[in-house]
Amino acid sequence: MQKRTRLSLLALSVAVVAGCATVAAVRDEPIQPIQPAKVNNPAMVELGKKLFFDPRLSRSGGISCNSCHNLSTGGADNLAASIGDRWQKGGINSPTVLNSSLNIAQFWDGRAKDLKEQAGGPIANPAEMASTHTVAVSTLQTIPGYVREFKSVYGTDQISIDQVTQALAVFEETLVTPNARFDQWLKGDNQALNMQELRGYELFKSSGCVACHNGAAVGGNSFQKMGLIQPYKTAHTAQGRVDVTKLDQDRFMFKVPTLRNVELTYPYFHDGAADTLTVAVDTMGKLQLGKSFTTQENADVVAFLKTLTGQQPSFALPHLPPSGDRTPRPDPFAKGG
Amino acid sequence: MQKRTRLSLLALSVAVVAGCATVAAVRDEPIQPIQPAKVNNPAMVELGKKLFFDPRLSRSGGISCNSCHNLSTGGADNLAASIGDRWQKGGINSPTVLNSSLNIAQFWDGRAKDLKEQAGGPIANPAEMASTHTVAVSTLQTIPGYVREFKSVYGTDQISIDQVTQALAVFEETLVTPNARFDQWLKGDNQALNMQELRGYELFKSSGCVACHNGAAVGGNSFQKMGLIQPYKTAHTAQGRVDVTKLDQDRFMFKVPTLRNVELTYPYFHDGAADTLTVAVDTMGKLQLGKSFTTQENADVVAFLKTLTGQQPSFALPHLPPSGDRTPRPDPFAKGG
Repeated sequence: MQKRTRLSLLALSVAVVAGCATVAAVRDEPIQPIQPAKVNNPAMVELGKKLFFDPRLSRSGGISCNSCHNLSTGGADNLAASIGDRWQKGGINSPTVLNSSLNIAQFWDGRAKDLKEQAGGPIANPAEMASTHTVAVSTLQTIPGYVREFKSVYGTDQISIDQVTQALAVFEETLVTPNARFDQWLKGDNQALNMQELRGYELFKSSGCVACHNGAAVGGNSFQKMGLIQPYKTAHTAQGRVDVTKLDQDRFMFKVPTLRNVELTYPYFHDGAADTLTVAVDTMGKLQLGKSFTTQENADVVAFLKTLTGQQPSFALPHLPPSGDRTPRPDPFAKGG
Repeated sequence: MQKRTRLSLLALSVAVVAGCATVAAVRDEPIQPIQPAKVNNPAMVELGKKLFFDPRLSRSGGISCNSCHNLSTGGADNLAASIGDRWQKGGINSPTVLNSSLNIAQFWDGRAKDLKEQAGGPIANPAEMASTHTVAVSTLQTIPGYVREFKSVYGTDQISIDQVTQALAVFEETLVTPNARFDQWLKGDNQALNMQELRGYELFKSSGCVACHNGAAVGGNSFQKMGLIQPYKTAHTAQGRVDVTKLDQDRFMFKVPTLRNVELTYPYFHDGAADTLTVAVDTMGKLQLGKSFTTQENADVVAFLKTLTGQQPSFALPHLPPSGDRTPRPDPFAKGG
C-alpha cells in the first residue's frame, strides 16, 4: 500500500513537471498552436453534424453544407466557384470551415458576425441551397428522428431556425485541426520541421506575410486590401467589405484567409484564381508586399505552408433520420422558382 | 493451473453450445439473415472508400459515388431522379449501394455483371459524372497520396481503371447491413418483432410478395416484369432488360429491388414515383399480385418492411489525398464538353 502511494505521487510529479514543461516550451512566435476542441454539449454537436450533412436543408434535396465545405477535402470544395442550386455558379470561392470558429467574422466580407449567423446564409441563398428558413424548419419538423433529437437537445417539440443554426455552429466549432507539424515545432519539438521549412518560416516573417497571417489560425483575424501595392487583376465582381460597411475605403477589403491546412484548400483567393501555392505565394509577394520571391524562396515558403496541415476532424459518417410520410419529397428539376 | 484449465474448458463448452444454438435457431424462412462483411484486404477497402467519396472522379469535380449513393441516407439519394453533371436529370432512380453485392447483376436492367463492372459506368456516363476512364485515371495519377496508396495495394506505379473499379467494388462489398430486427427474429429472438410486424410478414408471404422478394437481400436476385397483372402507368421511358437482351419478352423486366433498408430508400420504383411505403405496397399489390390490401393490411406490411432496416455501415469519414500541382483543376462551368 505504501509502495503504491509512493508510485502514485511519483506519477503525479512527473505529470505536473511534464505539464509545466509543455506550457513553458511554446515558442514566443506570432503564430500560436491550434487548441483541441472543447465539447460542452456532445448531443448538440451530434445534431449539428447530422444537419451539416443533410441535403434536405436545400431546395433540391441534393446540396448539404458538406457539399461546399467538404470535410473529406480540407473543409472546402477545391473549386474556384462552388456548384449551387440548378448548377448555378457560386459567387465567391468557398472558404474552409476548418478552424472557422477562430475567424474575426464569417464570409469573405465578414457580413456574418459568427458561425451561427453564417449558417443561415447558404440555406436561404437562391444561388446556393436555395431553400428558405421556413421551408427548412418545416421540413425538419416532419422528420420523426429529428423531432426527437431536437427535443432531447432543446427540450421542445418546436424546431426553430435558431436551434438549427446554433447546432450547426456548435458542430463547426469542433472542426479545429490541432497538432500540425508547425504546432509541434511551436511546442518545442525541434525535429518537427526541416531546414527548408524553417527557412520558409523565417522568410514568411521577414518578408511581412506574418503581418496579416498571424495568430492561431495564421489569418482570419483582420480585413485587408487585396492588391495593396499593385492592383489585383480579376474579372470577378466581388467588392469585399464595402458591401457591408458602405465605406469606399473598404472596397477590395477582404477577410484575410486562414493559412491553416492551406495545402488542402486550393484553389486560392476569393476568386479561386490561383491554382497552386506556388502561384499564390508569388502573387501575394508581388501585390501585397512588392516583393518578387526567387524560385528557391517561393519553394521555401510553400514548404513552410505545408507544415500547417493539422489533424483533420475524425468522426463516423453520420446516418440521417429518414423522412416521414409527410416530409416533402424534393424535386431538383421542378419548373420555376 | 488445474482450476484455470477446468474454467477454460467450461467456457469452451458454453461457447460451443451457444454457437450450435445460434446456428440451429435460424428459422427456415424464404428470407435469410444478412451476414457481416468479411474483409480480406483492408488496404484495398480503404482505398476504395476514398475513391467512393472522391469528386475528382467526375468532370466537374463536384460529384462522387456518394453523391447519388449517399451512405448517410441508406446508400441512395432519396430523389426520384439523381442530379447529374450540369444538373442533368438522372435516367433512372438511383438504387441503394447497401447490400448490392448480393444482387444477381447491377443496374435496374442488370447490364453490369458485378460491382466492378458497375463502378466504371457512372464515371463515364455523360449524364452522371461525365468524365472518362482515361481522364479519371490520369487525374488520380497526378495525386501523390493516391500514387503511394495504389502502389501499396497493387504493387505498381501505374494506376489503371481496373484497379479503380476493383477497389470501389471491394469497398462496396463491405456495405452490408446485418442485424436488422427481422434478422434477430430469424435467429430466434421472439421479442424482436411485435404482433403487427409478424402479421405483416405473414401477409407478405401469403400474398405472394415473397415470390420475388426473397433471399438474404429480400430481392435483388431475379428480373421480373413491372406491371404483371395490370400495366404500370408511367411517363418514364426506361424499357428495362430488353435494352440488354434485345428480347421483346424482356420489355419492362427490371431487377427486383432489395427491400433491405427500404425504410431509408424512398422514393420507390425505377421511376421513383412512389413517395411512401404505403403507396409502394398498394401499387405492388394491385399491379403484381392483383390484390387490394386493406388499410390495416397495408399498414401491417409496411410495419414488417421497417424491420428490415439493418446496421448501417459505420466508418470514419475518409480524408482524401490533396491534388498535386499538376492535377487538373476541374471547372464545373466550363463551356462545351
